[in-house]
Amino acid sequence: MESLVRFRTAGYEGFGVREGNTVYETASLLAAARGRAHPLGDVKLLAPCAPSKIVCVGRNYVDHAKELGNPVPEEPLIFLKPPSSLIGDGDPIVAPRLSENVHFEGELALVMGRRARKLREEEAWDFVLGFTCANDVTARDLQRKDGQWTRGKGFDTFCPCGPEILRRQEVPFEQLRVRTLLDGEVKQDGPVTDMIFSVPRVLAYMTAFLTLEPGDLVLTGTPAGVGPMRPGQTVTVEIAGLGRLSNPVVAEEA
Amino acid sequence: MESLVRFRTAGYEGFGVREGNTVYETASLLAAARGRAHPLGDVKLLAPCAPSKIVCVGRNYVDHAKELGNPVPEEPLIFLKPPSSLIGDGDPIVAPRLSENVHFEGELALVMGRRARKLREEEAWDFVLGFTCANDVTARDLQRKDGQWTRGKGFDTFCPCGPEILRRQEVPFEQLRVRTLLDGEVKQDGPVTDMIFSVPRVLAYMTAFLTLEPGDLVLTGTPAGVGPMRPGQTVTVEIAGLGRLSNPVVAEEA
Repeated sequence: MESLVRFRTAGYEGFGVREGNTVYETASLLAAARGRAHPLGDVKLLAPCAPSKIVCVGRNYVDHAKELGNPVPEEPLIFLKPPSSLIGDGDPIVAPRLSENVHFEGELALVMGRRARKLREEEAWDFVLGFTCANDVTARDLQRKDGQWTRGKGFDTFCPCGPEILRRQEVPFEQLRVRTLLDGEVKQDGPVTDMIFSVPRVLAYMTAFLTLEPGDLVLTGTPAGVGPMRPGQTVTVEIAGLGRLSNPVVAEEA
Repeated sequence: MESLVRFRTAGYEGFGVREGNTVYETASLLAAARGRAHPLGDVKLLAPCAPSKIVCVGRNYVDHAKELGNPVPEEPLIFLKPPSSLIGDGDPIVAPRLSENVHFEGELALVMGRRARKLREEEAWDFVLGFTCANDVTARDLQRKDGQWTRGKGFDTFCPCGPEILRRQEVPFEQLRVRTLLDGEVKQDGPVTDMIFSVPRVLAYMTAFLTLEPGDLVLTGTPAGVGPMRPGQTVTVEIAGLGRLSNPVVAEEA
């Protein structure tokens, strides 16, 4: 089975497809033609897409809304993370000196395959290219202090994503579970079917006001169990059938 | 004097420089070499940059914070508008059916010229390429209802910008005034020296958490006088020395 990646190796940085232990260069996220082949062991996988924007849903699992003392929302709560926050599998999450409470939030991410505007729920899935793992890293203290979430969720390295994209047609969506492990200990484990607002509902809501572009990333919310992580620890978002996204946490340099 | 633009004409869409009534193709925002020349009258000017993100400051003028009943902030209040909201001079602002209260907010915009990360205030100006006019169009009712400002400020067409970029070195920054006119009537008129947080302070604050890329757009806040606009009206943000950004307001199609 083929998965979609971005990777860097001597003389190349860009999109590709992985099949087994071989990675092939491709011209774009959506290009079918394969270019040069590289052994998987010779490449560094990057975040698997290069989104024009990262659009997220807050409080989309009942138990997570409750654990932070928030009401269950009546409509999807939308926010943006800047593309500058994106990192790939294995890259370090830098815990900023400005925060004393950096949390993991494991999430299922959608990667859009077509330009999407004013979608009807019944057509929304057709615009999704595939799935990957993401971590909506959040400086909880700054999120609360600022009111607007831009800074608390927008630091460089606060959007780990990957390691690769599995096409929608090849993934049994209804069976997916989002698990987050901190140093190997399971902290979050929720089925995606527990989302308050379904994927079609979320996409219809978002595209009622903004246009999603191919390659844009949509984070669908985090299940219960969020918590702090500290330099020296490693956080892993694991979605069986999609892969494992592991990132060490490091302290910001003085 | 040369200004920086993006434009579309038969067979070309991209960056350029304008000198008098001639527009020359360029390879990028920062490229100096001039390509083919076109008469200004033959081209459609687009939003003058293609930002990876649009980072904004809220409530950065005392009188504006007060007119909406908000406290004067102690730190810059940062939020993002999606790149999908960007339009150029002359393009229509679509007033969405979802809102009954769409406001103009005329602003001075900065266009970044270099990658900027953890700037010190004393070096911040060196990273600014130039200035242009912007309108932080806001669905005031949705901004208030949602809490997060992403939707209220993020509709397609809610970030008019342009018509062109004047280089920082050629603009007397301290003398700039942001004026907004609705159907020719002056609604906002404030000097940029009234900003609560100076440009260097804003850039240092933003780049303490995120990396700004060349071409990124920074909106510096709006003076007092914001108000509603309706389909059929035309809104103009005018900054003497920078130009006039005019956009008609149209109703969303059913």
